[in-house]
Amino acid sequence: MAFTAFDSAITGALLSDAETAAQFDDARVVRAFLRVEAALARAQAAIGAIPAQAGTRITQISADFELPPETLREGTAQDGIPIPTFVAALRSAVGPDVASYVHLGATSQDIMDTGLVLRLRDVFDLHERRLIALGHRLVTVSRAHATTPMAARTRMQQASPTSFGLKTAGWLAALTRHLQRLAELRKRTLVLSLSGAAGNMAAFGPDAATIERTVAQDLNLAVSPAPWHSLRDNLGETAGWFALVTGTLGKIGEDLVLLAQNEVAEIRLAAGGGSSTMPNKANPVLAETLVALARHNAAALGGFHQSVLQSHERGGAGWTLEWMVLPQMAVAAGAALQHFDTLLNQMQVDEARMLGTIHASKGLLLAEAVSFALSEHMPRADAITLTKKACGIAAEENTDLFEVLPRILNPALSRKIAWQDLRNPARHLGQSNALINRIVESFQAVACKTC
Amino acid sequence: MAFTAFDSAITGALLSDAETAAQFDDARVVRAFLRVEAALARAQAAIGAIPAQAGTRITQISADFELPPETLREGTAQDGIPIPTFVAALRSAVGPDVASYVHLGATSQDIMDTGLVLRLRDVFDLHERRLIALGHRLVTVSRAHATTPMAARTRMQQASPTSFGLKTAGWLAALTRHLQRLAELRKRTLVLSLSGAAGNMAAFGPDAATIERTVAQDLNLAVSPAPWHSLRDNLGETAGWFALVTGTLGKIGEDLVLLAQNEVAEIRLAAGGGSSTMPNKANPVLAETLVALARHNAAALGGFHQSVLQSHERGGAGWTLEWMVLPQMAVAAGAALQHFDTLLNQMQVDEARMLGTIHASKGLLLAEAVSFALSEHMPRADAITLTKKACGIAAEENTDLFEVLPRILNPALSRKIAWQDLRNPARHLGQSNALINRIVESFQAVACKTC
Amino acid sequence: MAFTAFDSAITGALLSDAETAAQFDDARVVRAFLRVEAALARAQAAIGAIPAQAGTRITQISADFELPPETLREGTAQDGIPIPTFVAALRSAVGPDVASYVHLGATSQDIMDTGLVLRLRDVFDLHERRLIALGHRLVTVSRAHATTPMAARTRMQQASPTSFGLKTAGWLAALTRHLQRLAELRKRTLVLSLSGAAGNMAAFGPDAATIERTVAQDLNLAVSPAPWHSLRDNLGETAGWFALVTGTLGKIGEDLVLLAQNEVAEIRLAAGGGSSTMPNKANPVLAETLVALARHNAAALGGFHQSVLQSHERGGAGWTLEWMVLPQMAVAAGAALQHFDTLLNQMQVDEARMLGTIHASKGLLLAEAVSFALSEHMPRADAITLTKKACGIAAEENTDLFEVLPRILNPALSRKIAWQDLRNPARHLGQSNALINRIVESFQAVACKTC
Amino acid sequence: MAFTAFDSAITGALLSDAETAAQFDDARVVRAFLRVEAALARAQAAIGAIPAQAGTRITQISADFELPPETLREGTAQDGIPIPTFVAALRSAVGPDVASYVHLGATSQDIMDTGLVLRLRDVFDLHERRLIALGHRLVTVSRAHATTPMAARTRMQQASPTSFGLKTAGWLAALTRHLQRLAELRKRTLVLSLSGAAGNMAAFGPDAATIERTVAQDLNLAVSPAPWHSLRDNLGETAGWFALVTGTLGKIGEDLVLLAQNEVAEIRLAAGGGSSTMPNKANPVLAETLVALARHNAAALGGFHQSVLQSHERGGAGWTLEWMVLPQMAVAAGAALQHFDTLLNQMQVDEARMLGTIHASKGLLLAEAVSFALSEHMPRADAITLTKKACGIAAEENTDLFEVLPRILNPALSRKIAWQDLRNPARHLGQSNALINRIVESFQAVACKTC
Repeated sequence: MAFTAFDSAITGALLSDAETAAQFDDARVVRAFLRVEAALARAQAAIGAIPAQAGTRITQISADFELPPETLREGTAQDGIPIPTFVAALRSAVGPDVASYVHLGATSQDIMDTGLVLRLRDVFDLHERRLIALGHRLVTVSRAHATTPMAARTRMQQASPTSFGLKTAGWLAALTRHLQRLAELRKRTLVLSLSGAAGNMAAFGPDAATIERTVAQDLNLAVSPAPWHSLRDNLGETAGWFALVTGTLGKIGEDLVLLAQNEVAEIRLAAGGGSSTMPNKANPVLAETLVALARHNAAALGGFHQSVLQSHERGGAGWTLEWMVLPQMAVAAGAALQHFDTLLNQMQVDEARMLGTIHASKGLLLAEAVSFALSEHMPRADAITLTKKACGIAAEENTDLFEVLPRILNPALSRKIAWQDLRNPARHLGQSNALINRIVESFQAVACKTC
Repeated sequence: MAFTAFDSAITGALLSDAETAAQFDDARVVRAFLRVEAALARAQAAIGAIPAQAGTRITQISADFELPPETLREGTAQDGIPIPTFVAALRSAVGPDVASYVHLGATSQDIMDTGLVLRLRDVFDLHERRLIALGHRLVTVSRAHATTPMAARTRMQQASPTSFGLKTAGWLAALTRHLQRLAELRKRTLVLSLSGAAGNMAAFGPDAATIERTVAQDLNLAVSPAPWHSLRDNLGETAGWFALVTGTLGKIGEDLVLLAQNEVAEIRLAAGGGSSTMPNKANPVLAETLVALARHNAAALGGFHQSVLQSHERGGAGWTLEWMVLPQMAVAAGAALQHFDTLLNQMQVDEARMLGTIHASKGLLLAEAVSFALSEHMPRADAITLTKKACGIAAEENTDLFEVLPRILNPALSRKIAWQDLRNPARHLGQSNALINRIVESFQAVACKTC
Repeated sequence: MAFTAFDSAITGALLSDAETAAQFDDARVVRAFLRVEAALARAQAAIGAIPAQAGTRITQISADFELPPETLREGTAQDGIPIPTFVAALRSAVGPDVASYVHLGATSQDIMDTGLVLRLRDVFDLHERRLIALGHRLVTVSRAHATTPMAARTRMQQASPTSFGLKTAGWLAALTRHLQRLAELRKRTLVLSLSGAAGNMAAFGPDAATIERTVAQDLNLAVSPAPWHSLRDNLGETAGWFALVTGTLGKIGEDLVLLAQNEVAEIRLAAGGGSSTMPNKANPVLAETLVALARHNAAALGGFHQSVLQSHERGGAGWTLEWMVLPQMAVAAGAALQHFDTLLNQMQVDEARMLGTIHASKGLLLAEAVSFALSEHMPRADAITLTKKACGIAAEENTDLFEVLPRILNPALSRKIAWQDLRNPARHLGQSNALINRIVESFQAVACKTC
Repeated sequence: MAFTAFDSAITGALLSDAETAAQFDDARVVRAFLRVEAALARAQAAIGAIPAQAGTRITQISADFELPPETLREGTAQDGIPIPTFVAALRSAVGPDVASYVHLGATSQDIMDTGLVLRLRDVFDLHERRLIALGHRLVTVSRAHATTPMAARTRMQQASPTSFGLKTAGWLAALTRHLQRLAELRKRTLVLSLSGAAGNMAAFGPDAATIERTVAQDLNLAVSPAPWHSLRDNLGETAGWFALVTGTLGKIGEDLVLLAQNEVAEIRLAAGGGSSTMPNKANPVLAETLVALARHNAAALGGFHQSVLQSHERGGAGWTLEWMVLPQMAVAAGAALQHFDTLLNQMQVDEARMLGTIHASKGLLLAEAVSFALSEHMPRADAITLTKKACGIAAEENTDLFEVLPRILNPALSRKIAWQDLRNPARHLGQSNALINRIVESFQAVACKTC
């Protein structure tokens, strides 16, 4: 029975993502091995390096071969890797005439690394689709709330007005950058490994390059200029991408948790988690989970980069470390993407409450705006000093800044101020709308090849 | 199907440890919940806070209740925790008359944290037994090789002679310290959590302290002076212990990997891993795995400490993060302890090769000893200068230091040197034997309450 | 000029702590080297291993020797360690007659490790004093607010009432545990290193153990049973302690940041940070810095544990890694301790606002208490269902739970409820007071050897 | 006095890099602030948002203003950031008439983030130059040793032959990928921040976008579609790049350390570190330092990603955490690049010893080649079985595999084998040469815009 929180039947639906996890489960791992061995045999058959019928038979058997993962357990504990046992099983399955032509010239790591890359490709495709779908939803939300005033909060204190749409557009901008990065790293990560025992392809004979190219085409992978058995920056970059995705979603989760606090309540997360003893509770479970997944992946990334130091032509310790870290990072990213989708469904935006927060500040949230209004009539430093003084009086008397200001201003000056406009938060949204537009355009340029 | 390398059928036997993992699997998690709820009901029945028959019935039902973990899946995804669904199931199982008395006054975290502590206790006991057994084996190895000369290596270069027994005794000293630490942290970690929704035990009524004390006695746990729902230094310390244990074993693994290199070959690790293509290979798989598990736990510890920052009376994000990290750390430690045991079985010490390494250095490994011998007859700085000069000549001519020295020494001085002794590595083991003795005594003082 | 944020003249006062940093600065590092070399010479002179006058002269010179750290720069870049250059300088300073007797039998790491331990001891003393002083202040705060009702918050949502004093007493309990841990780890960390080149003390001759014991007594350090050149669990444990201390303070910082939000405002942090453009801002700078320091140390701990894997008798890479991590961790802990002291000075507790939060919940914060009151008259499950129903109505109608309840309760039942008490938050503080008392006692037992 | 190992006068030359560090030191930090404020003033003057002479004066004063960093110390400790104090000083310097026009509309983070980006650009340029220079040197080494046979080592065991040139070409391939990544991340990282207090540019008025574009052009930075005050994936990606660079160099360092072991000695690192007591030692200090710097940056990256979770429109804790981590990562990368350059100078390749290692294996290193040779005459499985049998006999008898084989082979078959070729390691280098060529081409395509 599973013991990790990811695989656990109890916590799995909270912390894992079935679609991403499917790419790393034992059955898919073995399936990927089979795909690689079959492609290799086909390529070798194509140039006559092995008999044509061997290529055919290995292809056929591989297509249907159901090797119970458990049968690899003992061999893996012994050899540190499943491939020797796996290859023996495949050889046995194809029969004695063809057995010799299985895995010919390859090394275990070729099969495992290429198998991993094939599965990562599916993960990339899945996460890309999710990012794009989330992006489109954020476009809608951002536009809908382009002029919904709310308090910007900096360093956990109310600052000055912004729009809720600009907040969500900021999230969108980060997702857009993740899409850009994914396009770039694909060309480095989605590469074949077929370098043989020492990394120099020796056992593939003089046609090694042809075999390599053919297998790569068959599997629709690029060819790396160099063997990468022990040079793992491609995987380090990939792990970094998963961490960046969860990092952004963790930031979003933190924003949502903070906005859903009872005292703030500008966002309501319907269907939040119940308590076993408190009838009143509705916990922001999924938003908190985004934070947890992000912090998990951040730390995991630190661990993954330790595995980059792999000695000589193949590292044992570092390579093993990869397996303990990378799948969880991918799955955590997948879970975070799913949860954010659910949260966007759940999320109720309380525009009145957002406005209420601004008004409840009794003008203090507009202090910067006031100081700029005043500085049209006096040096900026004087305007700031005067505003600070007024803020102080307002706080002390617990009155509104806009009651204090007329009192302490020169009446002539006071008459020049457009008080009505100044008090209106909607007049202080700056470039919210324009920024949202350019963020949306940037997203669409990346996401919509055919929009 | 499992996707993590720990739970995987393929890699599980390499990276996991069934006995430790058993404490974290879903069934045991639920079992621990039941133990805590039953103990709570008994304690409340004992003082009349709930009817006596309620205590009896909850105890009986809990003892046999087989709740499929899958039934908690959906509720956990919803609530962020399994307890609301679990309590509902238990209430249903005990029947309507008694249902109200289940979980009375407790909060979900009380049940989960106490359940965790019960399972950690079993893990501590298991790991302690293993550490002690390994310690006894290291006592034997260290004594057997107390005077087996080998090259000490510092900064990855041969330094001067030491004994293999002192090397293994150093490992023993670290394991001894881990046993000491475990005894100390037990008293902080193995404590009941029973603080209720807000942490002030309010819902347990005026007899809260009595209930707490009774449940603690029932479960054989200590009472913490303070609620620890959001103060998690006890778990941080526990995670640190797992990381220290794997860290030491990782250092040992690294030593073994290095000693098993073909060019060194002072240790042979029988039954090492095979290659899929190279008939000559015997890989130091388990030793490399020790390194991988150590680096995993080191990074995981960094992640766990991020979870220590839990807000207010109960943190959601940080608490969730714990679940993703701590079980793996415990299991990795368990796997490392097992692997080291296997390695001690496998390990063949090649004493002749160890001596051969020293001789192959052509005297250079005895350079420090030479300089000390010379410094009985001249200032130490001169002795070092002379030795360095002789080393240089030996290296250049590719001759033995002990051929060079008589040539460049004053003959009168040369006659005073006990060359025979000086060339004998066994004369340069220093306090190896005495150090081994005091390390063994220190271990026995900690491990052998009844030896 | 310094570039790290710790050493920077700009950010140093925010992120560093002068007193802790003083133990790691170059001058103190050299001073510690000198203390160790002098103690070694004295011990060797005492048993006649070197001339008595050599011991005297090395002691005298070491006491006053001002070696500019810059003079070690080039040698350190060359050798990886400063000791060869340092020893050469010291030999030169003591003069040719005595030079040979400097550093006799020791290895560089003996001097560096023992020097580190001497400085860590001063850090431990400093941090212990600060922890105790903070503890005493928390005793005062906790007692003063033992019955100050405030909302407990779990998973970032209001839960049920607690007292502010219990919150601060929870912090105190964690600090108390850190004091306990410090006492325990001192005996493992504050140990001499004097094992010589290969770790077997060979170059100290037959009197090695006597020399070791004498130096240890001279420096007031314990003797470790085993050489620890490459077994670094003692330092790993020490790093873990710094991380645990900052972790707790980070949790406190997070609590303070959250309580100081404008919408919560139950705590005011006077003299908070100003903004360059917003006259209204008062940022919770020091509380945020506690969070930042905690997260820094958590990640740094993960890095430190990577350094535990040191090969053979002395690791080069792992040892070097220690230097890059440990001092910052100690200084971050020192800075956090100082900042928390400042925060306790700044912190203004707004009791009225705390009570106001509870009232503003319109009874919802008392939902658990209501359900328990009702369950005295009906099955607990029914009571919870009824309370949830009432909460729902109250939320929907935006009325107070205590207006809804009488409406939906059977009037006979309603008359049995002590509404006045039930509505009074002060009646729902549970064991706050008793818990505070036992936390204070636990602290005093650890902290007050002479109170 | 500095206490961090990076800033320390003692260890600074080992662990820091003066040129990279210069971009983060206090003086440069202030200088960058001044550049940003001046560019802002110029842009505002250009469109009449401030008087033309204000733009001129702020530009002039900023160019020469020498603000001692110490003067920002106290204000930074108070405000959490240096900008309020800095702006006050700059306003004072420009005089009362112009003071109001300094920093108009900007927020502190705009100045700090843009200042950081300007300095990162210089770091990128520096590191790119170094990577390219190192790449060219690796081209030379790889070509020179394209057919130098050496033992490939996998999982720390000798495997089969490869060429030293292919090993170094693998390193080159990774450096090439780092250059590609740098080109890509530049466009995301080297962007202006000029979003004002709430991130919506409100205080810049209706011409905000024009001002932004003008400042960006002035500073030669791109405009980010979105404010990035609290969306820090750009910096996370940057930190990841530094970690990838040090990771590759750490892998190289590990290879060099292993190759420089006395028992291997295929590489000699001249001018290695001396020991304080062992005249024979020459430690691979710089190679070990590469490993230490890599592990430092790996862990630091985990810490940096924790800082990505920054709340709302500006995070306090996460932002502060960045400062504690990023500069060290950049400097560690810089130091690693420098050290690798030195190592390439030092490195002496012992071709004879490399060949000797292969011969010393008594044919075992050629076992894979033997099995392939045999499999031309029998099924591959039989060939492997036969080879394993021969390896076993050779190991047992301590004879050469090529003495055993003729004995156990059918004489007719034996005559068909081209023994001479088979025994010649140079015949088993596979595609070494071709791989080196394509790696070099790939590097040149990235590095040589004008080669």
